[in-house]
Amino acid sequence: MSQPLEGYVVLDLTHVLAGPYTSMILSDLGAKVIKVERPEIGDDTRAFPPFKDGFSAYFAAINHGKESIALDLKKAEDREIFDQLLAQSDVILENYRPGVMERLGYGWDDLHARHPKLIYGAVSGFGHSGPDSLKPAYDMVVQARGGVMSITGERDREPVRVGASIGDIAAGMFLAHGILAALLSVKSGAPGQKVDVAMLDSQLALLEHAVAIASTTGEAPRPNGARHPSITPFETFHAEDGLFVIAAGNDVLFTRLCETLELPLAGDPRFATNMARCENARLLKRLIEAVTIDRPVDFWVNKLEAAGIPTGPIQNVVQAMEDPQMLARNMVVSVLDKAGAPAYVAAGNPIKLSGMADPTTRSPAPKLDGDREAILRWLEERST
Amino acid sequence: MSQPLEGYVVLDLTHVLAGPYTSMILSDLGAKVIKVERPEIGDDTRAFPPFKDGFSAYFAAINHGKESIALDLKKAEDREIFDQLLAQSDVILENYRPGVMERLGYGWDDLHARHPKLIYGAVSGFGHSGPDSLKPAYDMVVQARGGVMSITGERDREPVRVGASIGDIAAGMFLAHGILAALLSVKSGAPGQKVDVAMLDSQLALLEHAVAIASTTGEAPRPNGARHPSITPFETFHAEDGLFVIAAGNDVLFTRLCETLELPLAGDPRFATNMARCENARLLKRLIEAVTIDRPVDFWVNKLEAAGIPTGPIQNVVQAMEDPQMLARNMVVSVLDKAGAPAYVAAGNPIKLSGMADPTTRSPAPKLDGDREAILRWLEERST
Repeated sequence: MSQPLEGYVVLDLTHVLAGPYTSMILSDLGAKVIKVERPEIGDDTRAFPPFKDGFSAYFAAINHGKESIALDLKKAEDREIFDQLLAQSDVILENYRPGVMERLGYGWDDLHARHPKLIYGAVSGFGHSGPDSLKPAYDMVVQARGGVMSITGERDREPVRVGASIGDIAAGMFLAHGILAALLSVKSGAPGQKVDVAMLDSQLALLEHAVAIASTTGEAPRPNGARHPSITPFETFHAEDGLFVIAAGNDVLFTRLCETLELPLAGDPRFATNMARCENARLLKRLIEAVTIDRPVDFWVNKLEAAGIPTGPIQNVVQAMEDPQMLARNMVVSVLDKAGAPAYVAAGNPIKLSGMADPTTRSPAPKLDGDREAILRWLEERST
Repeated sequence: MSQPLEGYVVLDLTHVLAGPYTSMILSDLGAKVIKVERPEIGDDTRAFPPFKDGFSAYFAAINHGKESIALDLKKAEDREIFDQLLAQSDVILENYRPGVMERLGYGWDDLHARHPKLIYGAVSGFGHSGPDSLKPAYDMVVQARGGVMSITGERDREPVRVGASIGDIAAGMFLAHGILAALLSVKSGAPGQKVDVAMLDSQLALLEHAVAIASTTGEAPRPNGARHPSITPFETFHAEDGLFVIAAGNDVLFTRLCETLELPLAGDPRFATNMARCENARLLKRLIEAVTIDRPVDFWVNKLEAAGIPTGPIQNVVQAMEDPQMLARNMVVSVLDKAGAPAYVAAGNPIKLSGMADPTTRSPAPKLDGDREAILRWLEERST
């Protein structure tokens, strides 16, 4: 078993989340990721809580398995090291604002001329073209401007942020697709490419139904609380001791749900099709809750699962991390320290490949500049 | 300019969203995607609103550019066509429950023996291993069970669903990473692989900070409304005529924000570091709003942008689709009909490659079984 990106080298100038998420995916697939950080400060997320033993667990969760070297790309001696690293790299990643790399002399045109097979991956708030390309952005800015916040939250209340940083993460994931596709092209003999992914663009790409609704009706969809806007029943329901979800996505499942709950709705035209159910969703929720409210969540989840109906509890993050299915799939794993002892906890690799061992632990996250000696030695070995 | 996956063939048995999102990404990168659908009914999303001219705009948004053939894999004559398609394919995608493909005689072991270079991509609710692997799931089930709902919503109110279907989409995106990585391996001479991605796993992989917080503190993070849990200020603020966001992710940006708002907080220990600001976030929000409440959103967004501070309005989906930056980046494009006229609107391709023309329109979405003749002709050509 080997990792698909074994032997590939990623020179990673990115910081915070979007770019480091890309290099985490590439690292998980076997690439050697060399994180080039600003001297003294390093990646901003080294200062993000929560901390454990003085080290950011947030940083560790995203940067495990990477190596770190601190370089000041305005200093001649550091540029020399950087140039040597470039010569050994298949991919360079950066998340500066457009123009920064050009001013450093490492813009795409320069690099492409010097290293025709090198792939250049850029992730930025608004992309490398368009009127706002130079504006700064963080996750929350693109969640707000990109539309996802406007459909997340309770009806008629203020919009809320998606609890996960999908402004960053979606862009990081799309950048990884572009990098992998470009590696495939290079492998076929094509030249390297620049991959330009914008966090704002990526938000729109997530709005599968909202774009369809807005463009066909001309009206902006509103937040829908805990309900899917175009599938019914597909929402949370109250049981005796809490909330759970039922997701009956088609007529067969809905019929089975009615049988299981002993709800006599068969043949009722108000609920005969998904569209009819969407129109009568508020009524249907109450009819279902009139049944579910008298028994606990566990009872209903077990009963519906036995009938093959998609259902589940609403778990908090601690519960999700203790979920036997998550544990069976190595989705909650230790990040080790340099001595090999568990130091932090992080998500496992969600990409399970039959030809690659599924990691049951994560390699250490680097200290700032912590791999300088090893990287310099590696450069020497490669150049001889 | 050519597309990185030009010449690759994806045989796509998936339906609804997660799998079709994977094949959309592969199609956007140049692959030929042949959608194999159940006769008469086809992909469930063909029945999902909104509709335009009797055709689901939801279906069109995800399935543009793909071809459709209806096959009943229990019938001998259709299996023969399917076998011919398999022989021409680089990738097969399916999102059945584990075991279904085996019962059809198309399980991974069988296919791998017959087509050693074929890559087999499976996306399912809970993955192909673990105690719950046979349970059914939809987006909402994994959003609930995977933890993201528990951190999305207003503090001390019921959790809400993320407005976009990230339960499906995140899994579809991770599956695309696995497929692309496996294609790279095959290109290097390795055998094909099975890629097994679970929607539940994928949710945990999105919880970058929540897992760090839960594992270091032992406590489950709670919903935080429109505020980032570990960066401050990074939330919505009231202006005179609505809400906007400020995302000042580090000390330099915070200092600049105070100067721009003429807030005399320099040197105040309650706001001197990000950690201190997180502890005093509620107070800081009010101090900032005491300034921002008297002028409209546009005024503040312009003023803060001029000072280089990440900020932006909260846009609804119609506004996001009219955003000049989105339009400049081809992120809102027409899906054409067979005659070449604009029929629907969909998100553009967020993966911008220097070596591939950025699409300004989308190819038609297929009618059920609409490409049967063309596919059969293509099979004949390929086999001679």
